[in-house]
Amino acid sequence: MSAGRMEAFSDGVIAVIITIMVLELKVPHGADAAALAPLATTFLTYVLSFIYTAIYWNNHHHLMHAVRHVTGATLWANMHLLFWLSLVPFVTGWMDENHFAPITVAAYGLVLFFAGIAYFILTRVLLATHGRDSPLAKALGNDVKTKVSLVLYLGAAMLAFVQTWISLAIYVLVVAMWFVPERRFERLSAEHKP
Amino acid sequence: MSAGRMEAFSDGVIAVIITIMVLELKVPHGADAAALAPLATTFLTYVLSFIYTAIYWNNHHHLMHAVRHVTGATLWANMHLLFWLSLVPFVTGWMDENHFAPITVAAYGLVLFFAGIAYFILTRVLLATHGRDSPLAKALGNDVKTKVSLVLYLGAAMLAFVQTWISLAIYVLVVAMWFVPERRFERLSAEHKP
Amino acid sequence: MSAGRMEAFSDGVIAVIITIMVLELKVPHGADAAALAPLATTFLTYVLSFIYTAIYWNNHHHLMHAVRHVTGATLWANMHLLFWLSLVPFVTGWMDENHFAPITVAAYGLVLFFAGIAYFILTRVLLATHGRDSPLAKALGNDVKTKVSLVLYLGAAMLAFVQTWISLAIYVLVVAMWFVPERRFERLSAEHKP
Amino acid sequence: MSAGRMEAFSDGVIAVIITIMVLELKVPHGADAAALAPLATTFLTYVLSFIYTAIYWNNHHHLMHAVRHVTGATLWANMHLLFWLSLVPFVTGWMDENHFAPITVAAYGLVLFFAGIAYFILTRVLLATHGRDSPLAKALGNDVKTKVSLVLYLGAAMLAFVQTWISLAIYVLVVAMWFVPERRFERLSAEHKP
Repeated sequence: MSAGRMEAFSDGVIAVIITIMVLELKVPHGADAAALAPLATTFLTYVLSFIYTAIYWNNHHHLMHAVRHVTGATLWANMHLLFWLSLVPFVTGWMDENHFAPITVAAYGLVLFFAGIAYFILTRVLLATHGRDSPLAKALGNDVKTKVSLVLYLGAAMLAFVQTWISLAIYVLVVAMWFVPERRFERLSAEHKP
Repeated sequence: MSAGRMEAFSDGVIAVIITIMVLELKVPHGADAAALAPLATTFLTYVLSFIYTAIYWNNHHHLMHAVRHVTGATLWANMHLLFWLSLVPFVTGWMDENHFAPITVAAYGLVLFFAGIAYFILTRVLLATHGRDSPLAKALGNDVKTKVSLVLYLGAAMLAFVQTWISLAIYVLVVAMWFVPERRFERLSAEHKP
Repeated sequence: MSAGRMEAFSDGVIAVIITIMVLELKVPHGADAAALAPLATTFLTYVLSFIYTAIYWNNHHHLMHAVRHVTGATLWANMHLLFWLSLVPFVTGWMDENHFAPITVAAYGLVLFFAGIAYFILTRVLLATHGRDSPLAKALGNDVKTKVSLVLYLGAAMLAFVQTWISLAIYVLVVAMWFVPERRFERLSAEHKP
Repeated sequence: MSAGRMEAFSDGVIAVIITIMVLELKVPHGADAAALAPLATTFLTYVLSFIYTAIYWNNHHHLMHAVRHVTGATLWANMHLLFWLSLVPFVTGWMDENHFAPITVAAYGLVLFFAGIAYFILTRVLLATHGRDSPLAKALGNDVKTKVSLVLYLGAAMLAFVQTWISLAIYVLVVAMWFVPERRFERLSAEHKP
């Protein structure tokens, strides 16, 4: 099967996720300067989750660019990734409503951790059907960034019970690390002009 | 008419259904351990409905893969399926908010039953326009799994008034049964390379 | 410009409209038989609005099938149609929450009336760029059904202040009238195989 | 990379934005004439934000029509634009719920200002990869309208603290200015038939 419809469905799901998040963040009642302080936190939380979702879409886009065909297993691995991404608005809202209580900050990290695991599984399933010499395998390489992120997410989730600001700093750090576009796949595009 | 736009519209509707479900499930107010118990049920309910919707998308994707053309009747049969799927977030939320009261568990089963009926009608409408010797007809076969699911949904809906946990166990059972990808259509893909 | 992206955007908007409607309809608190009576009305209202939105998507799909190119004016005429359709969840929810108060039943009819006007304008804009002898012009014909619907919507909106059940009966009547697929365009497809 | 999937994702995000806005605007409880006055303001606010979002989709559509390829930088510039557009429902709801309090009217203008900046950045990123002699560069020209809009948005945001109705009048003025379709890109389409 070609990947077209799986991409279209993923685009739809991620488009809804990235947009409804803003609905989850409650508009402050009141319109004076005092209403602005909680709004700033709400806004920054939204920015963080927006960028995380955007990073996943970008990486997904780059990844699928090197994919030639999908199987039933690919569809489920992709659905698994979308499942964890769909929880991002939930944990974002929970964290924001409870003023960054430790358990909510940990939940945020765990959802990112499982989304990372799901992305890793998706790349392994794709590698299994494309072979070790495929352009996909070359572009993925040893995928250090994904593995480092997984360790950081899990560490941040645990550190939330010690000091939530450390966890939040780690979330921002991982964002910064991924913000750089995936040059591996762009190089691939340049070499193998479709 | 080609099936392209009907697929795109279905992707859009199912993408919204699968994502808004998480909005329906209310975030618990409070962030201590006591808030986690109801959250666990909410989470598992969401997982169940997510997988059901994912199964329908997967089956729809596999089914449409063998479809060559659609008619006005196909569009309505497909819309009918989307209608019942669109009620999944509604019954999921109702069941979760009312702590699995019998009537809500039965409603959940009924919506799954009618979605199953709608899927069955869609396959019949497609068969009518593709002929008994088409690749679609061969791939569908006698479709035992769909028929067994219908009986189980209806049974679970009725048993909800006796013991809701039996119904819930049946819902999980059907999920497990469908989780296996549709090998019938993958075999078809392998034989008739597009 | 080709119509592809205008179709994709319309699919997205209509997919969201048809799905979020179910979120607007409030789940009844309570899970006994007494909670079922208001639920029945809510359900039937949702069915009505779902079918109306489905009819618009179907007609839009059939219409665009005969369209060869779009202009800036087409984009705006289409956006105008999507605007009125986007109000369907709003008036559905308003009508349902206020137990079919006359003003809400009239508002429902007015939104359908303006959506009908917008659809009519869209066909005129398309005709202007396709010419009187185009397959599109032949398929549209004199478009009696659209014009009759407009009169019925406006009549129902006004009659809501006399007796709301007459208005609701008219809304069901128009649905029945449009439920029949657009044979005009299917005939066109049969004649001009792409 | 081709622009197809970036367009599809943008269509999805903008489709959700333009549709969920109507959910943010609260349905008035009550169904008599007294409930209509606030409804009128709510309706007009929705119309304004709907048209703004529609203008961005139209311009995006026209712009991408002249684009031949996208890079990682384009994806992020586009995501940045979608971020600011995703805040439109938020500021629309905040402004409407607080009866056009100065700070909310200013926030509305600021979001439009940053969306305009993001659109401008997107055109610069695209120009950088398409060259000064490309059809895209010719179609964009010196882009006076975008620059004038930016000044007007920022001016309106500041004037909100003096007199909110001046700001609102400016928002309507900019809408009127952009309502005219982008003839630059249509001319391009006529010259370079694909």
